[in-house]
Amino acid sequence: MSTEAVRQPQQDRSRATRQRLLAAAIDCLAELGWTGSTVSVVAERAGVSRGAAQHHFPTREDLVTAAIEYVTEERLAHLRQGLPDLPPGRDRTEFVVDTIGEMYASKLFSAALQLWVAASSDSQLREKVVPLEARVGREAHRMTVEALGADESRPGVREAVQATLDLARGLGLANLLTDDAKRRSRVLRQWAMTLDAALS
Amino acid sequence: MSTEAVRQPQQDRSRATRQRLLAAAIDCLAELGWTGSTVSVVAERAGVSRGAAQHHFPTREDLVTAAIEYVTEERLAHLRQGLPDLPPGRDRTEFVVDTIGEMYASKLFSAALQLWVAASSDSQLREKVVPLEARVGREAHRMTVEALGADESRPGVREAVQATLDLARGLGLANLLTDDAKRRSRVLRQWAMTLDAALS
Repeated sequence: MSTEAVRQPQQDRSRATRQRLLAAAIDCLAELGWTGSTVSVVAERAGVSRGAAQHHFPTREDLVTAAIEYVTEERLAHLRQGLPDLPPGRDRTEFVVDTIGEMYASKLFSAALQLWVAASSDSQLREKVVPLEARVGREAHRMTVEALGADESRPGVREAVQATLDLARGLGLANLLTDDAKRRSRVLRQWAMTLDAALS
Repeated sequence: MSTEAVRQPQQDRSRATRQRLLAAAIDCLAELGWTGSTVSVVAERAGVSRGAAQHHFPTREDLVTAAIEYVTEERLAHLRQGLPDLPPGRDRTEFVVDTIGEMYASKLFSAALQLWVAASSDSQLREKVVPLEARVGREAHRMTVEALGADESRPGVREAVQATLDLARGLGLANLLTDDAKRRSRVLRQWAMTLDAALS
């Protein structure tokens, strides 16, 4: 085998290991919280040796922030790909509002929440989380505008898009300890009508 | 002094001690998180002996859940007392939306968030927090309906009131790590207009 042929599978394995670690970090954070999600615990969950995990992510801060960023980007890309072939309007707005609502009611949100709350009483962690939050927030806003086909130059539209994300975050929080799916669905259906009126 | 005259100041002192502990518990939770907020730490912050603190609140769970409930009730009572003498309508709706937005951006919200998140990975704590959350949520909803003068028998009104509280919770979360006051104020102003239209 040529050197190149050997290198490629190694790179694939390395990428696969990295992605297993990122997915396991989300699981651990959501289930065990920040305190319980050490690199060793995450490595074990991922079926990866501790040494290999630390090769990819020297500290828990590195691992966990990378996991939140990676999974959020995956989810946002999924939102874009999943958009039905609908013109901007009521049905499309409903689809986007529902998809965002479900995204914030997911394990990803619980994991991110653990990270935010840990960062609120840990200044070193906060330094990593604040810029991550800003990037993720901007990206979520941009993708939502694009998905809705919203024209932010019109008065009130920017605030209505922001309110959609803030509302989804609030509903995600209401879902943390109990299953709030039925109430969430009613609130989001009503919001989709309001938002559609604001957009058009 | 009669027995009664002795008893009264003792009861007052005991009530004052209790309230100092509850206020200190909110401070500690918001600043140090659940892990850092032991009964000893809270007692020291309140200037109360550990024994006296444990007489009032045998466990950290008792202390912290009592603190969230007490402070939330105080805040909601404050909302009622602070209502300006305005008829239901745009100005009153704006006042209520602003007041609720500020309530969820406060230290009380950060403290409650620490408790919810700790409960999400601790089943014993969850058992105490879920019923507390249900009570507090019902009370917040009831007070908001009353403050707005909203008629929930009209279609969409109940969901609009719920969305107000969910939005405020989402905005509170966005304020956890950075000062989000300017953006929050714009989103809430816009929301007050939307809500007012839904109510009238």
